[in-house]
Amino acid sequence: MKEAIVLLSGGLDSSTMLAMAKAQGYDVTALTFDYGQKHRRELQSAKKVAKSIGVKEHIVMSLDLGQLLQSSLTQKGMGIPRRRSKREICDGIPDTYVPSRNIIFLSIASSIAESRGADAVFIAANAVDFSGYPDCTPEFILAFQRVLEVGTKAGKEGKPIVVEAPLLSKTKADIVREAVKLKVPLKLTWSCYEGGEKACGECDSCQLRLRGFSEAGLEDPIEYEVRR
Amino acid sequence: MKEAIVLLSGGLDSSTMLAMAKAQGYDVTALTFDYGQKHRRELQSAKKVAKSIGVKEHIVMSLDLGQLLQSSLTQKGMGIPRRRSKREICDGIPDTYVPSRNIIFLSIASSIAESRGADAVFIAANAVDFSGYPDCTPEFILAFQRVLEVGTKAGKEGKPIVVEAPLLSKTKADIVREAVKLKVPLKLTWSCYEGGEKACGECDSCQLRLRGFSEAGLEDPIEYEVRR
Repeated sequence: MKEAIVLLSGGLDSSTMLAMAKAQGYDVTALTFDYGQKHRRELQSAKKVAKSIGVKEHIVMSLDLGQLLQSSLTQKGMGIPRRRSKREICDGIPDTYVPSRNIIFLSIASSIAESRGADAVFIAANAVDFSGYPDCTPEFILAFQRVLEVGTKAGKEGKPIVVEAPLLSKTKADIVREAVKLKVPLKLTWSCYEGGEKACGECDSCQLRLRGFSEAGLEDPIEYEVRR
Repeated sequence: MKEAIVLLSGGLDSSTMLAMAKAQGYDVTALTFDYGQKHRRELQSAKKVAKSIGVKEHIVMSLDLGQLLQSSLTQKGMGIPRRRSKREICDGIPDTYVPSRNIIFLSIASSIAESRGADAVFIAANAVDFSGYPDCTPEFILAFQRVLEVGTKAGKEGKPIVVEAPLLSKTKADIVREAVKLKVPLKLTWSCYEGGEKACGECDSCQLRLRGFSEAGLEDPIEYEVRR
């Protein structure tokens, strides 16, 4: 059976990707990072989603990075941007960008994959309805794949860990439809950058998610403070 | 003043590189990882070396990876190879290889560098007198540089963090001579893969180090169980 390490944040995208990896026949280990994100609430969602969808193992790893990284997702003194227009969200790189975050996550996932003889690592990078993060683009995925080809033993032996990014060119509406098709427990997922009781509905992540559901003609089952 | 994050293990190579970075005029933050290595003793060396050479800050970060990674450097059930010939050491990839280790280290170093507006990350990769690790080669360094160019905000803005690997094509004897020239406190460094009181003298790392001193016509000031 094919084996994969799936990066799972607990949000809509990575939860859907987890279900896709399983539907593709992978035996899946989920990997979640506690890296000092303000929305630590997503860790609980990741645990519930992993349990609901079913994984071989769920590794939750602490990375003591939080205050070292300059990002409004981690720095206490920085507010998370709200109520930005679609154009603002998709234009430029916002301060929710966490430097090298996906590079770190992919490198640890690849290390575990190689140690266990797994075939692939899955990352829910998306370059359509996204916040312009540079580590979510096709060219980044290709460049990281090259690192695994030349910089690992598995790569040198001609069997590099494969970086799978199945959401790369999907719209948020596509992802919502895929989630529904695969019976992803959407009510358990958490996408909001704020760590409140309900999703704020106004950060970039909430807005992209709400727009995805709206464009798919479906209702998002989680609770929001505001639905714009 | 130029700023750099220098990956410092506490061994001969990275300690020498730290002195080189300072000699090149960099304001240096040293970064050391406690990743479950059996030779945790090197962490003490790293602290002493950083203090002796002088750095702006020394970050020692725990990575809870040890038992997840398949390597004789971390797995309690695996012995560290000893008394291998020069040909054996340089031919193939030994089980002291830690999957994706340098990818993980470089990605975290780059993340901190970008967060602080630093210019470069330094890694003591060496592709001459080395154990054949794939993440110590010029093609790996180039591939990782490409990741930073396309996958980070700094890269997108045309100022990617630069990966400096000044030891890449030096022999161990060159490194020893450089260390002496720059007055690196060699007595404080630790290269042995075993975590004993004295360096074992028989693991690949000790043998490469001893041979380097021998070829440079110098005496290694640290104590060994055996000098072969």
